[in-house]
Amino acid sequence: MKTQLSSKPGDQIVLAHGGGGQLTDELLRDIILPRLDEPPLETMLDSAILSPTGNDRLALTIDSYVVSPWKFPGGDIGRLAVCGSINDLAVVGARPVGLALSLVLTEGFEKSDLEHVMDSIEHAADEAGVNVVTGDTKVVGHDQGDGILITTSALGRISGSHTLNPDLVQPGDVLLINGPVGDHGLAVMMAREMPRMQTAVRSDVAPLNGLIEHLLDELGHAIVFMRDPTRSGLAGTLADLARSAALHIVIHESDIPVRPETRHAADLLGLDVLESANEGKFLMVVRPHAAGKALHLLHQHQLGQDAAIIGKVDDDESLAGVCELLTDIGGRRVLTKPYGEQLPRIC
Amino acid sequence: MKTQLSSKPGDQIVLAHGGGGQLTDELLRDIILPRLDEPPLETMLDSAILSPTGNDRLALTIDSYVVSPWKFPGGDIGRLAVCGSINDLAVVGARPVGLALSLVLTEGFEKSDLEHVMDSIEHAADEAGVNVVTGDTKVVGHDQGDGILITTSALGRISGSHTLNPDLVQPGDVLLINGPVGDHGLAVMMAREMPRMQTAVRSDVAPLNGLIEHLLDELGHAIVFMRDPTRSGLAGTLADLARSAALHIVIHESDIPVRPETRHAADLLGLDVLESANEGKFLMVVRPHAAGKALHLLHQHQLGQDAAIIGKVDDDESLAGVCELLTDIGGRRVLTKPYGEQLPRIC
Repeated sequence: MKTQLSSKPGDQIVLAHGGGGQLTDELLRDIILPRLDEPPLETMLDSAILSPTGNDRLALTIDSYVVSPWKFPGGDIGRLAVCGSINDLAVVGARPVGLALSLVLTEGFEKSDLEHVMDSIEHAADEAGVNVVTGDTKVVGHDQGDGILITTSALGRISGSHTLNPDLVQPGDVLLINGPVGDHGLAVMMAREMPRMQTAVRSDVAPLNGLIEHLLDELGHAIVFMRDPTRSGLAGTLADLARSAALHIVIHESDIPVRPETRHAADLLGLDVLESANEGKFLMVVRPHAAGKALHLLHQHQLGQDAAIIGKVDDDESLAGVCELLTDIGGRRVLTKPYGEQLPRIC
Repeated sequence: MKTQLSSKPGDQIVLAHGGGGQLTDELLRDIILPRLDEPPLETMLDSAILSPTGNDRLALTIDSYVVSPWKFPGGDIGRLAVCGSINDLAVVGARPVGLALSLVLTEGFEKSDLEHVMDSIEHAADEAGVNVVTGDTKVVGHDQGDGILITTSALGRISGSHTLNPDLVQPGDVLLINGPVGDHGLAVMMAREMPRMQTAVRSDVAPLNGLIEHLLDELGHAIVFMRDPTRSGLAGTLADLARSAALHIVIHESDIPVRPETRHAADLLGLDVLESANEGKFLMVVRPHAAGKALHLLHQHQLGQDAAIIGKVDDDESLAGVCELLTDIGGRRVLTKPYGEQLPRIC
């Protein structure tokens, strides 16, 4: 039952359909969403928000992790699967209630490797303060998979009435990032493409819920939007935000923190650090009066030590929907969502 | 990164680890559960039960579906993924609140086939009265997967205080099944092993939540336990129940409904119909006084027309933990959970 690449590529799924870029949007828009047709999915937040019991609001999220190699500097697929789902909850303001874990293993995968992955899951779940409450395990033939694939679904609870939403973003609002970007994508790509090259690039994969809960407690409604820039990177997240808020966003390239080794790896591989995935970062939009306090709070936390204000929302209506990057050399570049797959199997 | 079968099979995952039998239990016990160590997973119900907001009780379940072929008489992987998760909720007495859907597609998979699968997901979700509220899509290389793999996670709400649990089962209680067993497993195996053979065997895959909610409304606390006998079949489910309830269960083979074409297919393939997977069946244990009414209610419903009482719980303490099958020819057979994988990639 192996699928074949036929001569009509338009009729077939290509790797880029899974890249989180425009082709993924196309697949969702053309094939997946029309058949589901539910507002929660249409809003395209990372977690669905549900109100099953009157006033309570719950968030539900799911992601499959297919990263290759499954182990990379700074983490592995187990840590990634836990952090990815917890972070999807955190950026909609939800505290984790429980995690569901499904493994698809390939025949021949080493048990010791599975132990390594399960250890990582345990440690990451402890770090995030969440329990794995249910699970499933399947195995496919040695020629029907590629080692290990993990799907995690996380359930969270949203206290209070505050909703983080692009609709709340206004001109004047300030954009922050909690640290250097591109580390995850480039750590995985270096491990895959140049496994023998010594590099200091390490994935940033980490659970952000503790830091985000602290910020929400301290800043409340002054935080209007958050998102974790995973697939398609900071560039894709900013382009999406400008479009969905229908506002002009201006970012200063020189203010975006990037580690030297990560920039070096991006140059080596010919990749754009702004389009590279992050797994321990979040973009946050706050009201102008709260920007200073937000930065201060971030700097006090281990996962926000290198946080920075990277730009603001402008009131130029002629550029509504556009995110502009003011480059280091004084130019202007419109940030767009990558078309397809810059980095296959990166998360 | 292809995994290899080495000369030390004990160190590697084998297909049978995903079979839902003893080897799966071993994998869970030795590698997975020790690292998660949470009571909800230890209880090994199909759905976790959570109380995030005081009195409310929520159920969360997750399953990955790797069935091969992805389309089979009576259904496909899309219908299977929706029904499987909804049924896992239903048997713990939970009404569905929302469904999360994650797709992992293999490069080269036909878009028209994906449309077929998404149509099935839509129809099955409509049938079950549930919405897909969030999702994810990934793609792997054409030599890194086998067409399509779906993971669904379902969130449900449990009204009232009634908990369905093996601990509630008592001597005298009556066991029912809502119809003929083995259809799903044998439909898939016939499609895989004898694709050119004409057969009337069709998968029973269907959402059971409507029927089960009706039974719970009518019978309440007289229902003490339910479980859907998927991987490892009715035999595995009965063996598990006898062990976890620590009671002696007696089943009459002649009372277990089996379609003639299914029995024929099982004979052709050399498989045991009692160990074959079901995807539209549930085993129900009721108090003796409610058995007649339960059967009557089942017979009135489309998914219970061929329901039957198949046995009862005995008070023989010397056989506590054992499920005995009284065979058609007057013999006795102890039902055991299959050791490994009778049927790989059946769900």
